[in-house]
Amino acid sequence: MSFFDEMEYTTSNALFVPNRKYKFRVAQGADKVNAWRTSQVFFILFGSILSNREVDEIMASFKVSVGISNRHIHLSQEHIEALFGPGYTLTKTKDLSQPGQFACEETVTLIGPKGTMPGVRILGPARKASQVELSATDTFKIGVKPPVRDSGKLEETPGVDVEGPKGRVHLDQGVIVAARHIHMTPEEAAEYSLKDGDHVRVAVPGPRGGSLDHVLVRVNSNYELDLHLDTDEGNAFGLKNGQQLEVSTD
Amino acid sequence: MSFFDEMEYTTSNALFVPNRKYKFRVAQGADKVNAWRTSQVFFILFGSILSNREVDEIMASFKVSVGISNRHIHLSQEHIEALFGPGYTLTKTKDLSQPGQFACEETVTLIGPKGTMPGVRILGPARKASQVELSATDTFKIGVKPPVRDSGKLEETPGVDVEGPKGRVHLDQGVIVAARHIHMTPEEAAEYSLKDGDHVRVAVPGPRGGSLDHVLVRVNSNYELDLHLDTDEGNAFGLKNGQQLEVSTD
Repeated sequence: MSFFDEMEYTTSNALFVPNRKYKFRVAQGADKVNAWRTSQVFFILFGSILSNREVDEIMASFKVSVGISNRHIHLSQEHIEALFGPGYTLTKTKDLSQPGQFACEETVTLIGPKGTMPGVRILGPARKASQVELSATDTFKIGVKPPVRDSGKLEETPGVDVEGPKGRVHLDQGVIVAARHIHMTPEEAAEYSLKDGDHVRVAVPGPRGGSLDHVLVRVNSNYELDLHLDTDEGNAFGLKNGQQLEVSTD
Repeated sequence: MSFFDEMEYTTSNALFVPNRKYKFRVAQGADKVNAWRTSQVFFILFGSILSNREVDEIMASFKVSVGISNRHIHLSQEHIEALFGPGYTLTKTKDLSQPGQFACEETVTLIGPKGTMPGVRILGPARKASQVELSATDTFKIGVKPPVRDSGKLEETPGVDVEGPKGRVHLDQGVIVAARHIHMTPEEAAEYSLKDGDHVRVAVPGPRGGSLDHVLVRVNSNYELDLHLDTDEGNAFGLKNGQQLEVSTD
């Protein structure tokens, strides 16, 4: 007595998951136009639902904690000794979110063409190459024009003078505005279908909400899942350290 | 000889523009299943096209020029005279994007609980109530905690001490972090189906790109079309004054 009979149907239509079988129902005998009109609605709606499901499957989405980095400097052992004296080693005051990284008791003064910036925190441990990470706001104060760069990529970046209690060094290069990035382990990357060097989007709620696009994904077994922004980004979006944000691999 | 015959069809399906007539073709006689399968593809694709057209019609999208506001202060005539002397009038140095508004030669020093900020530019003309607009970055330096507010909404905002060459005044309130907003004329608002108090989204291209949501629309016949952000927002997104950005009323 049913208005429809059943049939197997494999679709290649864009709105459907390809090469998957669906059981639909086709008009038999009775009013062709009604059967046909009803089937449009059925197909279009069902098609949309399926295609949305597909999107959900393709787009990994997960939460990440924000860490807002204030201006800081990483120093080579050579520069540590030039600024603080021969054989000097840094004094840890606080562990950072990334294992092995720590904030130091020691600070330095940056001297740029247009101004000086005292109290710039040193982050340890000592690195191969010294690197200064400033917000764009900071760069205007001392008159340097660094590019937005991933940590460690210091080719053709400007330098700056650095002053410590026992001496002063000129960095030929190493000043950057750090590109926003997310640290994660290979296991987390695999879970979210991401690899080192990928970029993701971070959604920010609230009155100063919006989205941060092109957020670099950095994968290393020593990393903790963490989103690193600078103070300009934190302030522009009204963010607090430790706030949980939604990441999409879209 | 055609496989199909034509018929008029008015759809109420969500994917179609309601109450609009479409000419479609329905199977006659021949292989019902083929005709029916073909019609799905036809309907689903055509439906998608139409629904995209609908979205384009509903979402106005237009370009706006960015103006990045550095920290500044608006003063009442009473406060101008308290800071610069009886009968003093401000000295215009530069007209601003909004007609009648201008930057002044004069600056003041802000004195907060945690620090002072010299060289804060006065914007004229004199206003009924004095108002200090700082970036969130600025607020940490002098130790005030203003809310993100629309200009002029000063209820329950913190105050600050202001020092000029001839005196010092304490503002009981008036320090805000200005909420991002777009100025436009009633004609422009009408063109984009917007009204005063609406909010829009601004898309930002580039390596520090993303989107600024909840951007307030301010409509007045004296306004020039202009997007106003503060320096934190400008620096976080790597923006330059006068850069053209895409606004969507989505």
